[in-house]
Formats: sequence, structure tokens, C-alpha cells
Amino acid sequence: MTENRQILLSSRPLGLPKSTNFQFVQGEIPSADDGELLCRTLFLSVDVQQRPRMAEKQSPLGTVEIGEPMAGTTISEVVVANAGGFAPGDIVVCEGGWQDYAAVPADQVRKLDPQAYPPSWALGLIGEAGLAAKIGIERIARPQAGETVMVSSAAGVVGGIAGQLAKRLGCRVVGVAGSPAKCDYVVNELGFDACINYKSDGFLAQLQSACPDGVNVYFDNVGGRTLEAAARMMVHGTRVVVCGGTSWYNVTELPPGPDRTLLLLHSILLNRGRMEGFCVADYADEAPAMLAELEALAVAGELVYREEITDGLESAPEALKGIFIGRNTGKQVVRVATETLVG
Amino acid sequence: MTENRQILLSSRPLGLPKSTNFQFVQGEIPSADDGELLCRTLFLSVDVQQRPRMAEKQSPLGTVEIGEPMAGTTISEVVVANAGGFAPGDIVVCEGGWQDYAAVPADQVRKLDPQAYPPSWALGLIGEAGLAAKIGIERIARPQAGETVMVSSAAGVVGGIAGQLAKRLGCRVVGVAGSPAKCDYVVNELGFDACINYKSDGFLAQLQSACPDGVNVYFDNVGGRTLEAAARMMVHGTRVVVCGGTSWYNVTELPPGPDRTLLLLHSILLNRGRMEGFCVADYADEAPAMLAELEALAVAGELVYREEITDGLESAPEALKGIFIGRNTGKQVVRVATETLVG
Repeated sequence: MTENRQILLSSRPLGLPKSTNFQFVQGEIPSADDGELLCRTLFLSVDVQQRPRMAEKQSPLGTVEIGEPMAGTTISEVVVANAGGFAPGDIVVCEGGWQDYAAVPADQVRKLDPQAYPPSWALGLIGEAGLAAKIGIERIARPQAGETVMVSSAAGVVGGIAGQLAKRLGCRVVGVAGSPAKCDYVVNELGFDACINYKSDGFLAQLQSACPDGVNVYFDNVGGRTLEAAARMMVHGTRVVVCGGTSWYNVTELPPGPDRTLLLLHSILLNRGRMEGFCVADYADEAPAMLAELEALAVAGELVYREEITDGLESAPEALKGIFIGRNTGKQVVRVATETLVG
Repeated sequence: MTENRQILLSSRPLGLPKSTNFQFVQGEIPSADDGELLCRTLFLSVDVQQRPRMAEKQSPLGTVEIGEPMAGTTISEVVVANAGGFAPGDIVVCEGGWQDYAAVPADQVRKLDPQAYPPSWALGLIGEAGLAAKIGIERIARPQAGETVMVSSAAGVVGGIAGQLAKRLGCRVVGVAGSPAKCDYVVNELGFDACINYKSDGFLAQLQSACPDGVNVYFDNVGGRTLEAAARMMVHGTRVVVCGGTSWYNVTELPPGPDRTLLLLHSILLNRGRMEGFCVADYADEAPAMLAELEALAVAGELVYREEITDGLESAPEALKGIFIGRNTGKQVVRVATETLVG
């Protein structure tokens, strides 16, 4: 416990993050003030929301300044507890960032029961991703049994959970993913009714035959031409849930035409559609109850969840790039330390 | 009462309707069956919703077949009444179409009190346009006092009423229109707080300075770059009401890029925005009460309304073209007959 490896943001990326946007340094181990916990990173979450935080433009989640450790949610072990209700050895979820040690305010961490489920699940299934899927489906889309729910990035963590939650509500669930292997996973492991590879020929025609009654809900994680396809399949009262935008987090300028805005508007008007965005942070009061519901389903084996774990803090930049080029299936996690120091 | 001048749809337009899409003929005066009224057209409505009805693709309002009289709402005089509750000389709103005489089912007409207000108002202010404005503002957007409401096609009939209704709710109302004269009308006669000419230099900057706190509601009648500007001015919880699309009713293919869909999605996501379409026909049960509210305001002089009236059935095709190229300010009406036959 003498060194604190850190990955700093050294420059702002244009397009995909590159290794040159990061700098590896040996920093000081911070000390925990009153009300703070010194936390040692065990697992690090890699997710698309980290990309806007690297940009100069203000992100609602907070912008990382040049020279600061890259931001990120971690599963950490409490090493020093200067706050009531915590003790060394506790396992918590916190905003530890891309480093071995962080001092974090105790009121901003969530304590986990390490016996209840694998703690890294709190970075996805029983964390932000699970909440995003649950809020998007249950609060924004509110699908009825028998309706058709189309989900993009279906092999990704949010899409995979969203589709499974919609399936539990009695919907027909059709995924979109980027390879035959991912489509197999979505249908055979996650239990979607169908999954179409957006890179395949006749994508729209395949999607239309998988959704013979049109699309009542489109859970959008990507924008782009999958959204265009959804716009063409809208029916009366279709809801488009705007949850994320893997396809545009790295966009440096608007993509070439045609301008598909008109198609979208036209379909929304003709079908009395609704397109709505949301942010998990707006549901903070209800999050504990929602997480408990997700945990109950997960522990009972009612939600299928896959993690891809890379080893070593140094693997984080490449892992981050990987999620934008579709390399992973399931939740991307970096294992920073394999053993706990305490207990 | 021996001839029935008709304007038939003779071919489907590509882009703007042209005179060659229509054919003038002398038809037979139809007879009214049981339950029908023979109606003589006094005024004919010219509105953007007529354009999709000329297209081959199914329109929710019904597609006009080649060789049929062009569809359109009329103020008509009942000449023969084969249904209870009506008598010759009654003035009604009906789907008379572009012709002198039509036999229409009595249960599809609305009887007017010709003393209450100028009957032609029932083609706009106290009709479809007023309902569209009222539903869009009061049911879909639901602005709060103090919020900023941006309205495109502000000099048009729906936009003009929508802005005035928002103003009555205590909102700051900013219009967008296509000429200095229209902008003057919107501010000085309709009472909007500001109105920006979208053809002027620095359109976005002017709009931003007219909306210093951003846009809480955007009432969209046009799509296109005015929607792009609105997307750039969204704030937390902005509602985009998709009411019409003057700028795209005549589009034959998607316009050139860039693809602005991403900008719209990004802004909806970051701001937890909502974009929603609606159709007046879905509010049929509530329409009578809404029309009574509009009538009360109109008769009390609380809503400013302007009509542009052209004379003669033969002026209808050119009047229809005019509303798409922005020629009119206010509601475009064609006066087909100046006197009633009865009474």
C-alpha cells in the first residue's frame, strides 16, 4: 500500500478514445478526511457514458478535466473509514475513477452485501444499467402484454436487460445486434423472440418480418439507421425511448445525409408517436427499491447477465474503445485487484 | 341549380401541386339519399392536410382517388334535407370537396349558427385549426406560466392560435415566420413577445437572444431547420409538439444532409425531452366543448384571426399551392358562392 497507479485524461479525444488520450502515472495515496472513506479499487466499470465526460462540453454527469484521473464507477474495498456506518473491509460501489485508491465522501457510496451476489454485478445489472433498462421500459415505454418491443444494442447490458424485462411483461421482443454470434446470444441465452444483425443484407426487410404487427416500443441505444428502421415500422401510439447513443457518442460532426429527421417527424405525426429521453439520476429516490427488485430477479436466476472481464488497470483504455466498436458481448468490466487487503 | 362545377384530381403531384394535377369538369348534381343532405358549397378550406390526401400512400384522413373530386372541408348551405334536425337554408360544416354540390351523410356535418360568428371561421379558428392549436398546447405541451413557447409558422392559422393560447397561459411566446411583414403581424397583431424571420442572417443567434432561458415548448408545424434550431435550445424537460409539417408535405425524397437526427436525439436524451405527435380526430368526443371554448374567446375578441379569401372555385388549386410557398398570412379560404339559395 505504497503506490497509487492512476490513468489520467491527458487530452480530449476526437472520435474514438485512443491510448494517447491517457497518461499512466504513479500518484500519491490520498488521505480520507472526516466523512470520507479511503477506497481501494477492485473492479472498474467501462461504459459509454464515460465518453461524454471526456469531452470539453459540459456533461450532465460531470466533465473530467485534463490531468485528472479518468472518472468511472468502481467496486471498491474500504481501507480507511472516517465515517459512521462503515468499516475497513466493507465492499462498496463508488465513483473511484481509474486508479488504485480514492478518497470518497461516505454519503456518495452504496454498501454491498458481498454474499448476496457477485459484487461486480453492481456495476451493471444491479446498478446503472439495470436502472436504465427498468426505468426506460417500466416508466417511459410502459408496454402492454402482446405489444412488440424492439431493442437496439440487444447484446449490450442495457438492451439485454430491457428486452428481458419487456419479455416478462408478456411482450414480443425483437433485438438488433451487430453480429450473428451476438444475435444467437440474444435469442438463445437472453430469450428474445428474434434478433436481427444490422450489418446483414436486407436488414429492414428482416426486421419487418420479425415485427409483423409493427413496433409499439423502440428502446433506442444507438440512433442511426436502426432508429430509421424503427421510424418506418411505427404504428399508432409507438413510444421511442431515448436511452443512449453508442452510435453518436464519438461523433465529431453530424453524419452525412440524407436528413432523416423528416422521416422520424412524419412517422411520429402520422402515428401519434412519442419519443422521450430520461436520465437515471432523476429517479434517485426510487432507485433503492428498483435495485432491490432487480436483485431479487437476478438472484433467482430470472435475468440472464454476462460480464466480460479484462485484467489490470492498464487494460481500461482499450476496453473503453472496445465497447464503441462492438467488441464486447455483455457488460465490460476491468478487474483492478483480485484480493482484498482487509479481512 | 342545374350544373355542378367540380375540380377532380387528375394525377398525383410530385412535390408541389400543379394546375395539371387537376381537371375542371361539369358534373351532375347528386341526389340526397335518406339520411343525407344535399349541400351547396359557400366556402372551401385550403389547408396543408389536403396534400397527403393527394398522394398514393394511405393518408389517415383518406386518400383521394384519381378522377374523384378533390377532398376538402366546406361551409355549405343545405339545399335538400333528407334527415331529421336539418332544413333547407341551414349552414353547415361538411366534407363537401371541391365542387358546387355534394350529398353528405347528415351525421357527418356540424350545424352552425350563422349569427354567432362569420361561418367561414368554422374552417379554421373554430374548427380543425383551432382544435389542433388547443390540443397541441393544452393537452400535449401543457406549458406553465413563465415558460418559453416557440412556435413555427407563427403567421399561419394553427401557429397563430397556438401562440395566443400559450400567451393566455402566461408564457413567453416566440414565433418563427418567413418574412418581415409576417413577423410584424405576429408581434403587433397576434401579440407574440418576439418573432424571428427564418430567412434572415443569424437566424439561430436571433432566436437564442429571443429565448434567453431556452425553449420549454416547441410547437412544430414545419420540421427542417427550425426544428434543428429548437433542438439546440432545448432545456430540461422540453416538449416538442409535432403538429404538422408544411416543410415536408411536398417532399419527394429525404432532403440532403447532414443527418440532423442525431442532434435531435442527443438533445432529447441530455434534456430528458419529449417529442409527441397527435391527431385532432382522436379527440372527437371532446371537440364540441373545445369548440365552444374557442368560440367564446373568438366572439369576445380575445383571439386575433385573419382570413385570406380568394374568389371562385377555380382559384382553389393556386390557393393550395400558395400555402406551401408561404404566400398567405392567416387562414386561406376560397369563396365559392356569395349568396345562399334558400331564405
